[in-house]
Amino acid sequence: MNLTLIGIGTGNPEHLTLQAIRAINAQDLILIPHKGEGKADLAELRRAICDEVLTNPQTQITGFDLPVRDEATANYRQRVDDWHDAIAQCWQQAIAAHPKAEKVALLVWGDPSLYDSTLRIASRLSPVPQIEVIAGITSLQALTAAHAIPINEIGAPFVVTTGRRLRDEGWPQGIDTLAIMLDGTCAFQSLPPEGVHIWWGGYVGMKEQILCSGPLTEVSDQIIKMRAAARAEHGWIMDIYILRKAGV
Amino acid sequence: MNLTLIGIGTGNPEHLTLQAIRAINAQDLILIPHKGEGKADLAELRRAICDEVLTNPQTQITGFDLPVRDEATANYRQRVDDWHDAIAQCWQQAIAAHPKAEKVALLVWGDPSLYDSTLRIASRLSPVPQIEVIAGITSLQALTAAHAIPINEIGAPFVVTTGRRLRDEGWPQGIDTLAIMLDGTCAFQSLPPEGVHIWWGGYVGMKEQILCSGPLTEVSDQIIKMRAAARAEHGWIMDIYILRKAGV
Repeated sequence: MNLTLIGIGTGNPEHLTLQAIRAINAQDLILIPHKGEGKADLAELRRAICDEVLTNPQTQITGFDLPVRDEATANYRQRVDDWHDAIAQCWQQAIAAHPKAEKVALLVWGDPSLYDSTLRIASRLSPVPQIEVIAGITSLQALTAAHAIPINEIGAPFVVTTGRRLRDEGWPQGIDTLAIMLDGTCAFQSLPPEGVHIWWGGYVGMKEQILCSGPLTEVSDQIIKMRAAARAEHGWIMDIYILRKAGV
Repeated sequence: MNLTLIGIGTGNPEHLTLQAIRAINAQDLILIPHKGEGKADLAELRRAICDEVLTNPQTQITGFDLPVRDEATANYRQRVDDWHDAIAQCWQQAIAAHPKAEKVALLVWGDPSLYDSTLRIASRLSPVPQIEVIAGITSLQALTAAHAIPINEIGAPFVVTTGRRLRDEGWPQGIDTLAIMLDGTCAFQSLPPEGVHIWWGGYVGMKEQILCSGPLTEVSDQIIKMRAAARAEHGWIMDIYILRKAGV
């Protein structure tokens, strides 16, 4: 079996690449989660994309129920591992129900390489399929595009990390630019804000996109309020931001 | 004037997003460098992309000569700044020759946010245009897709940096995964290779793509040879790689 992981970008159907559209139309079977991401606005996006670009009548679409993480498992890594095992089982069942499907695909939010577990889950399938990856636009690129900024200074490095790491470990040594993903708690609040510029975005690339940028001393409270209000309005939020020490 | 910087991906015309195709067709004028990147295989790519997806008869394409960096300027940053000034002047002249063009675009290799100077050059135009950015697939994503690997371990950070930095400053502290760009000298040779895995690619995303991965102790020499041979064959090379400390 061939399993293709197709990056679809961050909610703007126009983030799809020509390569992704061709890959969608080359499949026997496309697996789409019914729900379970807790993000109602997103639940239908994968089906909407297929409705729009799938022209191959041979391609079947099948739903599967995404299992829920067992929050009773105290160890974070174990909890994630168990959850990935459970998702792999769901895929296995959905694929087994279509024994003639040789080419199977999943549509991956953003890009399969960046803070995404689809590749790790795929490696749990038995037998391990031949895996192909189609790159997609990431939320980090949607953020920099929305603000029209480069992520790096000339020839300079940057770190991509998580809200949890920033909160627990502080600003990484020797590097002036950080991109923060998977932050549920506005971890930038844990930093001394002086001399730091932030470029923040919620729902980047989507029609709901909201943006804010400025010196952290001035916009930190504003971002916290914008984020809370947007989350209340939509029932969920995905946000991302870049931090840069000034004068570099 | 509106200036749109359109990410076109890394040489596979199918990296183009639907958003990029729409943006190309929304322009009055598209500026394309004649040559000067020293990469003959790439010189025609932008025109080929326009030939393929441009259907708006109102859109004009105009070439401009890319100036050469003055290697006599000793200071690296000054040399780059001068070069960006010179490029901005070329754009300005090309735009001035089309006074009716309200919407002008440049096609940017990869994504305008990542180790690319198009945004910095655009900010030198006078008057400063209204800038819009369309994200494109980066070489980093083309690399991870080609190797079918995630860039980060679960919840873990990574650094994106340059070959020069890796050579001069060594492995950044406290981070196990590095992505290395703009490396003309196989800077991984400067590292103690024990316990380091490398995923390397040349011409990633293009039809010339070559790949190699493995423990750095085993594949370092092989990559150096592959790179030299490919460079001799094509007359140029662009390569990129990910390094990860094992056992993390």
